Amino acid sequence: MAVVGGGQLARMMAAPAAALGVELRVLVESAQASAAQVVRQAPVGMPADDGALARLVREPSPAAVLTFEHEHVPGEVLRGLAAQGVSVQPGADALVHAQDKVVMRSRLEALGAPVPRWAAVGSPTELADFLAGVGGRAVVKTARGGYDGKGVRVVEDPRDVDDWFAAAAHGGPGLLAEELVGFTRELAVLAARSPSGEVRTWPVVESLQVEGVCYLVTAPAPNLDPATEAVAREVAVQVAEGLGVTGVLAVEMFEVRGADGAPGVLVNELAMRPHNSGHWTIDGAVTSQFEQHLRAVLDLPLGDTSPRAPWTVMANVLGSARDRLSDGVAQVAALDAGAKVHVYGKDVRPGRKLGHVTVSGADLEQVRARAEAAAAVLRGDDSGPIYRGGVADG
Amino acid sequence: MAVVGGGQLARMMAAPAAALGVELRVLVESAQASAAQVVRQAPVGMPADDGALARLVREPSPAAVLTFEHEHVPGEVLRGLAAQGVSVQPGADALVHAQDKVVMRSRLEALGAPVPRWAAVGSPTELADFLAGVGGRAVVKTARGGYDGKGVRVVEDPRDVDDWFAAAAHGGPGLLAEELVGFTRELAVLAARSPSGEVRTWPVVESLQVEGVCYLVTAPAPNLDPATEAVAREVAVQVAEGLGVTGVLAVEMFEVRGADGAPGVLVNELAMRPHNSGHWTIDGAVTSQFEQHLRAVLDLPLGDTSPRAPWTVMANVLGSARDRLSDGVAQVAALDAGAKVHVYGKDVRPGRKLGHVTVSGADLEQVRARAEAAAAVLRGDDSGPIYRGGVADG
Repeated sequence: MAVVGGGQLARMMAAPAAALGVELRVLVESAQASAAQVVRQAPVGMPADDGALARLVREPSPAAVLTFEHEHVPGEVLRGLAAQGVSVQPGADALVHAQDKVVMRSRLEALGAPVPRWAAVGSPTELADFLAGVGGRAVVKTARGGYDGKGVRVVEDPRDVDDWFAAAAHGGPGLLAEELVGFTRELAVLAARSPSGEVRTWPVVESLQVEGVCYLVTAPAPNLDPATEAVAREVAVQVAEGLGVTGVLAVEMFEVRGADGAPGVLVNELAMRPHNSGHWTIDGAVTSQFEQHLRAVLDLPLGDTSPRAPWTVMANVLGSARDRLSDGVAQVAALDAGAKVHVYGKDVRPGRKLGHVTVSGADLEQVRARAEAAAAVLRGDDSGPIYRGGVADG
Repeated sequence: MAVVGGGQLARMMAAPAAALGVELRVLVESAQASAAQVVRQAPVGMPADDGALARLVREPSPAAVLTFEHEHVPGEVLRGLAAQGVSVQPGADALVHAQDKVVMRSRLEALGAPVPRWAAVGSPTELADFLAGVGGRAVVKTARGGYDGKGVRVVEDPRDVDDWFAAAAHGGPGLLAEELVGFTRELAVLAARSPSGEVRTWPVVESLQVEGVCYLVTAPAPNLDPATEAVAREVAVQVAEGLGVTGVLAVEMFEVRGADGAPGVLVNELAMRPHNSGHWTIDGAVTSQFEQHLRAVLDLPLGDTSPRAPWTVMANVLGSARDRLSDGVAQVAALDAGAKVHVYGKDVRPGRKLGHVTVSGADLEQVRARAEAAAAVLRGDDSGPIYRGGVADG
């Protein structure tokens, strides 16, 4: 199996690949990349370099499938490989929905999936019209290239994104505007779909974002209305099937209340790969999202997505006061014998995703406190827990 | 961390090493070895080659610790490395008890650990004397070099091991004789001990052997008398501490009934490394034996050994009618979405340990049947389940 991208997502594919006896090769951005440290075959190359990709899938022997840990491979490169007989999973026609938010929003709307009010905005005038229609404030996003809060601004005036309009006029990504959704919390549903059409979803999780970056994931989402749970999972299946996704699909959603007070969801973002909202599955589910992604793209029957414990909480480590995150492993081990630490082997930078900690158990408040405390030790700070209750605590 | 030995035990250390951010290098017997397929740094060399070991611990940078996935490194080689400042875990003085059964039996006796009646036998006459004292039949073992039923014979006549006596006279391993224990079943206790002295044990498991090879492990051991459970775990701690073990220690035991009918245990064999009786911990315990071995030899605080499920059963795949075990993964996945498959990447040979399958759940009979069925699919045969009940089913 060939994977494009040498970050932590590819790194975490290594364990299930070894267990299933799947030969893994990863195209990494540098020899020091997170995945390069733990994968035997890790040639260096850039994701848009069609020569590097062609070598990846052919050498030393033809790879069964080409897949990704990010969305940065141009569609024309993938179409070229597919035309040469390479099994590209997900294919370019599916992946474009995770690469271009205008394409994604249009398609979801056509499918009838619940989405916020939105519009592609080609000029300040169009944005001004949209703002007028949604009460004067909106979220503006670049259609391509954004992640972890980058490429997203809350605006009240079209001039707030003058730079983006200027960039768009010179070949940069187009823009879209979305209503500011008055959500009660953020949810995420992870699904996996195989080329044969089998689909499985994991339980809906609650995702707490800090400045646009996933910080804390609670599985399953506490106090979730059963109807919302069912709708959220149905929407994920609908999107996976409607877009022809193969592999893991993450659907980030807003939990909202309708005019009648009835709960519901709106789809926020999509990712077609293992996703931060699914890291809890490594320790907390029978089948992890990384194993499932392998199974799905290789068209193996999918694994059981049941949780292994009543509650699992995953806390991200975003930046650290430590020189190396691994220096904190002993302290976490001393603090909590049951905390599962995952270090990504990346150089420390402010706000960077450097690792995560997972804790499972029967008492939600304890589990969350333990996960937060362990993550704080890895961060090397004493800023205390970020989770402050809210709907999750009723 | 440097590991001697490139088999499946080293292979299964790779996942926790990546998670904990521990740099792993493995001395492998060949470039195609099980661990060599999944470990980035896997120099080829033999375990008794002190030059190869010295390079392993020094290049490209000094390794924090040297440890093992088997017992085949000569004590003098380890003492030489330790004298040069290498942290060897377990050390030569502990490891000798897993290398030489006469040393082991003598030391366990001195510690007061429960062992079968035994004697070192230097000649056919001494063996004849021992046989006369135990009713005419005994187990004879070579003190060194045996594993998986090799180097073990049940004898009624000293001439049955004439070849071994002849070999011993020419520098081969010495022999010991043990009474044939009338055990009710075989148990195993896995412990881990760190250089700082912290010790943790996992629940006692039942181990079903077929022709001297571990076939099926049930965790925890069903219907185990609580007093026996406590004694078995105490014995494991006593052995770990008494022998100065660091890392994982597997203590294989016989469950016996005393003259008064009271249950008890006798220690059969020791291994100072992750062990087949502990493979269930990867999927079935909060901390796997592989993660714990890393934590222990690196002197990190040890992890929680609690089971994740009421029952976990591990079935070995010993030989296969398939060309490659990985060819069976799709069929297992189709049969049982919750079966956890572990393929070792080894060439198929009759009786060889090629992989294992683990199933967890609340119903023991179902869990066992599922594990056996999945292993049978990987073996590619229809010989049916091997487990036929017995004390485990009451």
